[in-house]
Amino acid sequence: MRIDIITVVPGLLEGPFSHSILKRAEDKGIAKVRVHNLRDYSSFKQKQVDDYAFGGGAGMVLMVDPIAKCIEFLKSEREYDEVIYMTPDGKTFNQQMANELSLKGNLIILCGHYKGVDERVRQKWISREISIGDFVLSGGELAAAVVADAIIRLIPGVLNDETSAMTDSFQDGLLAPPVYTRPSEYEGMKVPEVLLSGHQSKIDSWRFEASVRRTKERRPDLLEGKGLEGDFSK
Amino acid sequence: MRIDIITVVPGLLEGPFSHSILKRAEDKGIAKVRVHNLRDYSSFKQKQVDDYAFGGGAGMVLMVDPIAKCIEFLKSEREYDEVIYMTPDGKTFNQQMANELSLKGNLIILCGHYKGVDERVRQKWISREISIGDFVLSGGELAAAVVADAIIRLIPGVLNDETSAMTDSFQDGLLAPPVYTRPSEYEGMKVPEVLLSGHQSKIDSWRFEASVRRTKERRPDLLEGKGLEGDFSK
Repeated sequence: MRIDIITVVPGLLEGPFSHSILKRAEDKGIAKVRVHNLRDYSSFKQKQVDDYAFGGGAGMVLMVDPIAKCIEFLKSEREYDEVIYMTPDGKTFNQQMANELSLKGNLIILCGHYKGVDERVRQKWISREISIGDFVLSGGELAAAVVADAIIRLIPGVLNDETSAMTDSFQDGLLAPPVYTRPSEYEGMKVPEVLLSGHQSKIDSWRFEASVRRTKERRPDLLEGKGLEGDFSK
Repeated sequence: MRIDIITVVPGLLEGPFSHSILKRAEDKGIAKVRVHNLRDYSSFKQKQVDDYAFGGGAGMVLMVDPIAKCIEFLKSEREYDEVIYMTPDGKTFNQQMANELSLKGNLIILCGHYKGVDERVRQKWISREISIGDFVLSGGELAAAVVADAIIRLIPGVLNDETSAMTDSFQDGLLAPPVYTRPSEYEGMKVPEVLLSGHQSKIDSWRFEASVRRTKERRPDLLEGKGLEGDFSK
């Protein structure tokens, strides 16, 4: 997989892609992330990429031209499955969408900034609009990093056993159970005994019940239609 | 405001806090973000901060001790309003929560990594658990950066007029209307004429109707109870 991210603040994305799992995916040759500075595609001497909104009001708008040029350049180099725009009014990102996108080949992710991009970019060049949640950020960069991280870690070979995604929250529609590690007692706080028992089937049951209970308490919406509604209330 | 972020991958957070609006907030003395490496609080020579989960299974767990030490050290230096843990099973972050947190003084944000933190940390030291959405990331770092960005940009004085938060999506419970900038025609695609008309009241009406229409199409859930359900279908 290859992800090309288009942004006016490339420096903001330096950390996320040179550390941790994304770095490992790159080193293993499994996934590549390239960050493109929109200003490199400006026709203006001053590298201007934004301008005031027609109709007035606060907030700058990213112009069509540099975005169109950048996307067209990337498309001339290779095929892309999707051109994604990160925007608060896009479809809300979730684990199912992450699973789906992790199967794609090449993606372009365009980050909005200031008031966003000229609407004509969205009409002509964007195939999918994604929001990471009902809140506003100073730009789409962190949202793009979040989406890239969530997708790339699902590609087989990126995570090793120690960080397996199979027992994560949401993969089975349940929140993950509580986890504990050494020491078994810390300032009087003890680990539940069953986890120290060595009885794997009892441990598995405890974890499943703890998962369901936690989901019931915190996110009952995730349980709807699963037939688990009445079972773990004690 | 001061935000202290505790992480095992401090490098991941280098970019987000040295660029853009967060950098500006720091330069203006309005908001400070400090990143703490959890390994600095490890009692082990090898700076170990994680261990296998009791009960077995894939995934490492962050130990109580270094986290407790780091939080207690920070609390000995100043008062904190909240100690937040970023976790997929936390309360879903939204603009309302961002508004609320932007009024706080000092915050600690603890980032999970691998399978998360020992449950006893959550029981004893955490006052609020936040998720940025129904998906799993390789760690809480990007989620913490998202929360810090969403909060800090709301503090008066951080944004200037050009980037005003007042017309953002969600601030009034509606998605933002489409925006356009020069040129008024690009490869045959024109800006809606009303936006070029100079009639501010017509422009305002167009924008309000476009906001409601977009919200109806994309996020009808946001309109419930607003009495706008039947008005803008044309």
